[in-house]
Amino acid sequence: MNKKVERHISADDISEMDRVFRLRLINTVSGYKSASLIGTSDDRGNTNLATFNSVVHIGSNPPLIGFIVRPSTVPRHTLSNILDTGNYTINLISEAITEQSHCCSANFEKGVSEFKACGLTEWYDQSIASPYVAESPVKLGMTFKEKIDIKSNGTCLIVGEVEEIYFTDDFLTAEGDVDLGKARAVAISGLNHYHRVSKLSTYPYARVDGLPEFDRKDK
Amino acid sequence: MNKKVERHISADDISEMDRVFRLRLINTVSGYKSASLIGTSDDRGNTNLATFNSVVHIGSNPPLIGFIVRPSTVPRHTLSNILDTGNYTINLISEAITEQSHCCSANFEKGVSEFKACGLTEWYDQSIASPYVAESPVKLGMTFKEKIDIKSNGTCLIVGEVEEIYFTDDFLTAEGDVDLGKARAVAISGLNHYHRVSKLSTYPYARVDGLPEFDRKDK
Repeated sequence: MNKKVERHISADDISEMDRVFRLRLINTVSGYKSASLIGTSDDRGNTNLATFNSVVHIGSNPPLIGFIVRPSTVPRHTLSNILDTGNYTINLISEAITEQSHCCSANFEKGVSEFKACGLTEWYDQSIASPYVAESPVKLGMTFKEKIDIKSNGTCLIVGEVEEIYFTDDFLTAEGDVDLGKARAVAISGLNHYHRVSKLSTYPYARVDGLPEFDRKDK
Repeated sequence: MNKKVERHISADDISEMDRVFRLRLINTVSGYKSASLIGTSDDRGNTNLATFNSVVHIGSNPPLIGFIVRPSTVPRHTLSNILDTGNYTINLISEAITEQSHCCSANFEKGVSEFKACGLTEWYDQSIASPYVAESPVKLGMTFKEKIDIKSNGTCLIVGEVEEIYFTDDFLTAEGDVDLGKARAVAISGLNHYHRVSKLSTYPYARVDGLPEFDRKDK
């Protein structure tokens, strides 16, 4: 062991923690997360917008993206709307709209649209009935594919397919990467910390026969 | 529509893209992701370390964390080791070890340990047989809970429970948040872009009766 360990937290420590302390610890300890607003509407056209930090890449061909939803708590309108209509939007949160986006995590009554309550603008295209967030720099139109139950705690993984993508500016590089720095997209840690992100390093695809010479240690 | 849309990409555009261009687009378009090394060993003690950008929060009580794995491609040793031994480690990638960590995404033969090949140091505690990464500032010992198949593309969601946490310094705030800035944890976009992160804003828990006054638009 060549690095000191300053603090050790055991399973017993975790189970005996105050509920909110544990919630903060476990939400932050696994690292920075994506910051998204998921837009839906019910079958009467009432719109809903909810903040998510659990959007995850599932695969690129077909283009699949997932997110975790807890059916019993706040963003329940998101899930019921997706199951009713079969579509939704994922809108990246940029530095300019972190306060409005965080507001969308409040527990509004059914019938109150987070768009109006939080100062964001609905925007629609032709192929997806769910509302996009006009202010978001990168917007994805999604069709629902799978709801997968996670037995360990009663949450679900929702898997959707990307139907279309809108950029408010030309964020796409010649290689196919979305330049998230140019889009001023933010990262979240925990439930309420929003972060600015700046590129540190890009490495080529790692191949066994082309690795850099690391300082190999006797281990 | 009060914001210009500079670029629209349709489902047809996506399906007709060059494979690598599409892979880059879909991997980057859903935002910044967590950057982790997952450590495992097989039943003969051969160690394995793989880079993941799909670690996601599942719940805090019990403390559950998930990640997506594609059984048919590179990090397959990770999955088979977890299923054999029932445990693994999640180690956050910090600014100091991005190059070594990216190296772990190369497709090494079974029997070659990424620790040695990529210049990282195995470290062990008593309760988990899998190797931790000594250089990682935040290390999680995990026990396997669930392997959930995603039918849409043959990938899996692996769900594990946090058994213990190690910090190389005192990164825990009085409120229970892990200070990822102090840990110099990085975020990933796509498969090969590593990013420095700095706090932009923290907002209190959003309550309907305590929202800021946004500039409400007629919508």
